[in-house]
Amino acid sequence: MDANNWTQLWLTYQRIEDIKGDWNISYSGFDMEHRIVESGVYEFRNALEGLTGENVIISQDEEKNQNASTLFLVRDEGIPAQGYFVDSDEKGATIKASDENGLLYGIFALIRNVACGKRPGEIREEKSPSNPLRMMNHWDNMDGSIERGYSGNSFFFERNNIIISRRTRDYARFMASIGINGVVINNVNVKDAASYLITDRYFDKVKALSEIFADFGIKLYLSLNFASPIELGGLPVCDPMSKEVIDWWKDKMKEVYDQIPDLGGFLVKADSEGRPGPFTYGRTQADGANMLADIIAPYGGIIIWRCFVYNCTQDWRDRKTDRARAGYDYFKEQDGDYHDNVILQIKNGPMDFQIREAVSPLLGGLTRTNQMLEVQIAQEYTGHQIDLCYLIPLYKEVLDFHTYCKEGCDTVADVVSTRTFGNRLGGMAAVINTGNDYNWTGNDLAAANTYGFGRLSFDTSLSAEQIAREWIKMTYQLPSDKEDVLTDMLLRSREIYEKYTSFLGIGWMVTPGDHYGPSVDGYEYSRWGTYHRADHLGIGVDRTDRGTGYAQQYYRQNAEMYNDPETCPEELLLFFHHIPYTYKLKSGKTLIQYIYDSHFEGEKEAEELSADWKGLEPYVPDSVFERVSERFDRQITNAREWRDQVNSYFFRKSGIPDEKGREIY
Amino acid sequence: MDANNWTQLWLTYQRIEDIKGDWNISYSGFDMEHRIVESGVYEFRNALEGLTGENVIISQDEEKNQNASTLFLVRDEGIPAQGYFVDSDEKGATIKASDENGLLYGIFALIRNVACGKRPGEIREEKSPSNPLRMMNHWDNMDGSIERGYSGNSFFFERNNIIISRRTRDYARFMASIGINGVVINNVNVKDAASYLITDRYFDKVKALSEIFADFGIKLYLSLNFASPIELGGLPVCDPMSKEVIDWWKDKMKEVYDQIPDLGGFLVKADSEGRPGPFTYGRTQADGANMLADIIAPYGGIIIWRCFVYNCTQDWRDRKTDRARAGYDYFKEQDGDYHDNVILQIKNGPMDFQIREAVSPLLGGLTRTNQMLEVQIAQEYTGHQIDLCYLIPLYKEVLDFHTYCKEGCDTVADVVSTRTFGNRLGGMAAVINTGNDYNWTGNDLAAANTYGFGRLSFDTSLSAEQIAREWIKMTYQLPSDKEDVLTDMLLRSREIYEKYTSFLGIGWMVTPGDHYGPSVDGYEYSRWGTYHRADHLGIGVDRTDRGTGYAQQYYRQNAEMYNDPETCPEELLLFFHHIPYTYKLKSGKTLIQYIYDSHFEGEKEAEELSADWKGLEPYVPDSVFERVSERFDRQITNAREWRDQVNSYFFRKSGIPDEKGREIY
Repeated sequence: MDANNWTQLWLTYQRIEDIKGDWNISYSGFDMEHRIVESGVYEFRNALEGLTGENVIISQDEEKNQNASTLFLVRDEGIPAQGYFVDSDEKGATIKASDENGLLYGIFALIRNVACGKRPGEIREEKSPSNPLRMMNHWDNMDGSIERGYSGNSFFFERNNIIISRRTRDYARFMASIGINGVVINNVNVKDAASYLITDRYFDKVKALSEIFADFGIKLYLSLNFASPIELGGLPVCDPMSKEVIDWWKDKMKEVYDQIPDLGGFLVKADSEGRPGPFTYGRTQADGANMLADIIAPYGGIIIWRCFVYNCTQDWRDRKTDRARAGYDYFKEQDGDYHDNVILQIKNGPMDFQIREAVSPLLGGLTRTNQMLEVQIAQEYTGHQIDLCYLIPLYKEVLDFHTYCKEGCDTVADVVSTRTFGNRLGGMAAVINTGNDYNWTGNDLAAANTYGFGRLSFDTSLSAEQIAREWIKMTYQLPSDKEDVLTDMLLRSREIYEKYTSFLGIGWMVTPGDHYGPSVDGYEYSRWGTYHRADHLGIGVDRTDRGTGYAQQYYRQNAEMYNDPETCPEELLLFFHHIPYTYKLKSGKTLIQYIYDSHFEGEKEAEELSADWKGLEPYVPDSVFERVSERFDRQITNAREWRDQVNSYFFRKSGIPDEKGREIY
Repeated sequence: MDANNWTQLWLTYQRIEDIKGDWNISYSGFDMEHRIVESGVYEFRNALEGLTGENVIISQDEEKNQNASTLFLVRDEGIPAQGYFVDSDEKGATIKASDENGLLYGIFALIRNVACGKRPGEIREEKSPSNPLRMMNHWDNMDGSIERGYSGNSFFFERNNIIISRRTRDYARFMASIGINGVVINNVNVKDAASYLITDRYFDKVKALSEIFADFGIKLYLSLNFASPIELGGLPVCDPMSKEVIDWWKDKMKEVYDQIPDLGGFLVKADSEGRPGPFTYGRTQADGANMLADIIAPYGGIIIWRCFVYNCTQDWRDRKTDRARAGYDYFKEQDGDYHDNVILQIKNGPMDFQIREAVSPLLGGLTRTNQMLEVQIAQEYTGHQIDLCYLIPLYKEVLDFHTYCKEGCDTVADVVSTRTFGNRLGGMAAVINTGNDYNWTGNDLAAANTYGFGRLSFDTSLSAEQIAREWIKMTYQLPSDKEDVLTDMLLRSREIYEKYTSFLGIGWMVTPGDHYGPSVDGYEYSRWGTYHRADHLGIGVDRTDRGTGYAQQYYRQNAEMYNDPETCPEELLLFFHHIPYTYKLKSGKTLIQYIYDSHFEGEKEAEELSADWKGLEPYVPDSVFERVSERFDRQITNAREWRDQVNSYFFRKSGIPDEKGREIY
């Protein structure tokens, strides 16, 4: 990797006429030497230089330049934490905030508004973050590989060392610009060298990294190996109730926080897919989480405990066990037992980041526990950043989902924001899609998801379209009709991907292990609990009260809705019901015809996406055009393979021909 | 690996009463200092020490011991090459041969007869090898891994070095004891370090290895990288018609044979599964093979050219292309063009070592070309040396197959022996199943295949049962009723494996890549040309004259037999025909019921095998019992998985229930 070989993503400022390069800055209540304030001013200057194409002169208030505009940075305790108020007129702009993070976000808001075409006088924005915690989870391994990474290798780790470079700083800038305030740098599957991140082998570098993050108001978190007392401490067990284990952790955490006092805390994947955890010792998840949380509470640390716990050695023959049930079954019982610096991190759906799933019933199902929504920006099941799949609409659906947990304040957005239950902690986390590729995200257009997640976690009221337009305006300079084209491409892309892949909520059907490309039976006879149960008459999993009972984990209104195929939202029909191929959908189409039609359409629409992109050639940089075009070529190949395998599979199984007589193999 | 940590396989001599340890040896026409003669006498002494449990005194004729028996080693030019005549009486034994290899095989024959319970006076055996070439092919990589190896790592290579140890010598002894006279030490996929085996980086060690082999009458061969002129020589091409390329090979081969004058020659996998070859330059396979063969002819070397050439990037949608056709299509046209030190190595079936396939139509289809049969002892598709699968019955079926190429002398055994067409070269080769495991073959019982292949290649008239009994008597000391049990286990095992896996010649249905365990659709939508074409009505590949026409590659009698489902041998029915599930087999059973029944039976019989083994506990060494028992446990797990996945797949697809109402999922 060339040391300076990367793009500036959405901070690639395009030249804008009529912006002035002469500014005074006036500080009121903020220390101009505070690290975050300095970063904010640096960003302001950097943005101006990009926008004006000139050398920017920034004076401090005392040496006021009469011709200059003025940026007032004002502390205002009335503004909520990390929020900001931005106002502007011909003479300059004012940013008010009650803390430095808010100030920095306000500066970025000002820049964003300008970059998106607004002019002084038009800009007035008051925002406070929807979620207290807005986090990125990196699944980076210390050997440099990235689990489910589709954009090159890690820019944090290389050959078991921590990398600190100018790219690290750019990364932190990008994250702050979209409102991220926490980053977990290492994979939740903590093994090998990563277990040693909490030892003096790495303290210096972790601290150095956390300092760079701190410049941008970001807390660094580490994924933790629950078996550390065994692997590092040489103890025979890691039982959270063992005094020896607790003492070991106390010493360890003291050592860690002595060295890295700003450490945000730890993310833990326990008792999940082979990872160690409290179940081994007959303890609950709460026992494990609370033990660690109590120990780090004095340091202000938090424990983020993942709820991705299920039996991953299921027998495919067993139709009673239902992986979808597992999270609720394991965690609901201890609701209220978790201490207040524990937060449960809950994947959006009960399975695993499929293109469409029901919303996890744990979200809002827990009422006395800090909870955080986890989504995946990395396109593990949604096209590996080869296929275009703008995921913000998916996240929006989840956030807007009414759980019925509390009247008038029951959406997932409400719940995780802490509004609903007044929890101490809440927020959103995403498995990020970045790597050391030149363009950070493999497919340049996949950066819309990175950008979008950050913006959405800061402001869940934004629409998917607003976010798409912002990202486009920030990243490229397109004529407005072309911006419409690209916006539309992004907005259609998730549905297109769904059309040519797995349908009506059934999920999976992917190549085992890799998860790109079709294999209809790939997970059908495996141990992972991910079955479609297709036979010659029908397909789908009965999760009603006549089946696995999963639907009954929801509050009554949703439970009833899902329990009946007639009221179940059709896009989730096969998630909840086993349905005959001859079943008539609301459109009047049979299920089997829907399978055929959607797959032919999806493939065709993938080709249309590619054609739309071709039309943007004159308007985007050549290198971007080439990279993205190559991705679309691969997407079309993938879409054809999905179309033909899925259609052939169901034709061969059902024996029912396509009404339109199209080619099925 | 402990330097002495390995078994002696079938040369584990058991104590036998009434064998004398006092012998004179009389040489007539053989040089007692010839390396092979010395090896023979060593083996004789070693065997006697094992059999008698005493120190053995071997005197030379001149210092004759009056109480001793005498072994006469007599050169007799009337005995065919590498053949022997063994006779014995109370006073000793006589071995006649026309060459040292024959003498060595005669000594092993004498030992084998004694170890198998015969006594002086009963032993009289005259044999000459059925096949001139009897070869083992190792798929060992120089990093120590073994492609399709299920018994540990290579004992030839480790970290890109050649290992020479006492184990090497034992290996050579074992091979000579079963009549093997050629060994290819490296994988046919020649890459990385292995490309350098023909450079001075490795000459010393290859030569040292070949010397050990030479002590036992075994020629060493190397697998060759056809792209060596590019990879080693820096030439832009490896076109076999390029003067530059030819000159490069001439220099290279001179260098190789100067250093290793005894080298047998080279095995080449060209234009196959991504390997380079003459097709790249628009040349035929004959152009490639002849070029190399001409260059090494002066050194007495031969080129063994594999016929495993097919399109491995097929489109599963395409029903016209048929991988089974490929070998014949590519090689038949050049029949007669291959020079007389080229031998084509032809896999037993047209696909790839499935549990049951039709015999390759190239065998006997070629009439003017040296040809050699290739089989696989390594259980790639037949249970990974976890499941018991005695393969000699399969090899016997192939050898006994009537090709109709020449009246009265038309079996595959006839063809490859050179009897049919009087070719200069012929024989049998096997992909061997050994590694550096303590017991060499993972499953101790898998050594019956190693032993059996050697014996069968030397004497194709032996029955599978004879070979099994020989191997058992040599390896263990069982009471005769227990020997019957183990013999029966071996003889049943191939059919049992077939019953619980893929049926009636359809093959595949294995986990992609790994090839162990079921995945019915695992290769159904892939690029490998390996399809079952199952739909809701039936299954099988139409290879008749109405289908791909593959059946027409055989001589008329076989072509007609295969072309008609009524005359097609039932065990190959689905290899040649697409058959409805409701089709009545000769037993009166429908195809679908046959699928169910055979899978339930196969699993049950796997359990019976395991139970039979349990009954042998008192009669075999504890360590053997434990190792093999563990394998049977895994075999039962595998058999259940196969039974349930195959039955469920076809029940779900056909919708036809099991007549007997057994559990299908």
